[in-house]
Amino acid sequence: MSVRVAVLAQITEADRILADGLRADLARRGILAINLIAAPGAGKTALVERTIVGLKGELRVGVVEGDLATSLDAERIAALGAPAVQITTGSGCHLEARMVQAALGSLPLEEIDVLIVENVGNLVCPTAWDLGEDARVVVASLAEGDDKPRKYPAAFATAQAVVVNKTDLEPYLPARAAVLRERALAVNGSLAVFEVSCLTGSGLEGWLEWVRESLRRKRGGKG
Amino acid sequence: MSVRVAVLAQITEADRILADGLRADLARRGILAINLIAAPGAGKTALVERTIVGLKGELRVGVVEGDLATSLDAERIAALGAPAVQITTGSGCHLEARMVQAALGSLPLEEIDVLIVENVGNLVCPTAWDLGEDARVVVASLAEGDDKPRKYPAAFATAQAVVVNKTDLEPYLPARAAVLRERALAVNGSLAVFEVSCLTGSGLEGWLEWVRESLRRKRGGKG
Repeated sequence: MSVRVAVLAQITEADRILADGLRADLARRGILAINLIAAPGAGKTALVERTIVGLKGELRVGVVEGDLATSLDAERIAALGAPAVQITTGSGCHLEARMVQAALGSLPLEEIDVLIVENVGNLVCPTAWDLGEDARVVVASLAEGDDKPRKYPAAFATAQAVVVNKTDLEPYLPARAAVLRERALAVNGSLAVFEVSCLTGSGLEGWLEWVRESLRRKRGGKG
Repeated sequence: MSVRVAVLAQITEADRILADGLRADLARRGILAINLIAAPGAGKTALVERTIVGLKGELRVGVVEGDLATSLDAERIAALGAPAVQITTGSGCHLEARMVQAALGSLPLEEIDVLIVENVGNLVCPTAWDLGEDARVVVASLAEGDDKPRKYPAAFATAQAVVVNKTDLEPYLPARAAVLRERALAVNGSLAVFEVSCLTGSGLEGWLEWVRESLRRKRGGKG
């Protein structure tokens, strides 16, 4: 027995124009912008940390942190010496382009190559909002199960890459990374999929190379 | 550096009246209603399955399943012989009382002692919506980390119980069940906290006894 409910779209044309303007501004500055989307606890901040450290001395990462209530994540990022700005949404379930735009005023954009926007921990609402990013990346914890692409398809359908995290737990889980990969690709065949453990550091080189290559493509495309 | 954004409350007085009416109707029928809230992949459906099986022959469980896109969860419940109705929300990030009310028309309420409403996988939006429940229960996967009460405080502040799931993984995680418990109680000192593994079945008896006792209290309170 199934009941289908209608949901009203809340995104306005003004939001879209703002996101496009933000994207154009970041393009002019040669900054690659990544919108990181995941369920709570999937390891978004851990991936940001690994990315900052992995690209250190090569590419400069700046971070916008979206959280309901605390600045814990921004403090973790700042501890690594990367510029970070915290957006506290209260009960807001996603970031919007206007919030990112306001936050960017607090970041030294001339010193940033890669901007990572860590969205609020939520696999539903953030998928509908364009933050002016070049690439949308889903972090999927293998501990959450390998059925998430089926159950939260919009997140995977609108992304360019999926980082399957916590693969170190695979021996102790009923979920399989290969199954998650297959189901993600069934939703969106053009996804780049990386299997990593931000705890042990395994598998991260492929992800870092994807970031480097995305930036190269963006800057190459500029000229 | 921190930016705070305003969020508009969308819940109307009509929603509240509807939820109260639903709660009164379920009370008349002697049904205990539980609103199950969790992040994607925390193990809500696994807990529902364990609850149905654990109370079998003693209490009859009926289930309302909230999901974005599939009826996979309702099928899992139906396979156990329990009455289940699926609400497919499309891109809707939470259930509302009017959806539950519509779904109840498809359940044999006279054959149900405990109604479990499994909300959409989301630790943010569902916390604001009263579904006419007697008790709100958060399922927190230990694999998501032990910091969730700090980062998603509203879910814990408005709940009566927390089920810490996937404790079987504790030896392989940086997170600790005792720390999660302590942080949940720091947000809401009146929470009942249960540490379980729906995979292995460990720790579930305390949770089942809490369900039994909640129903006894509700029915005792009626007469």
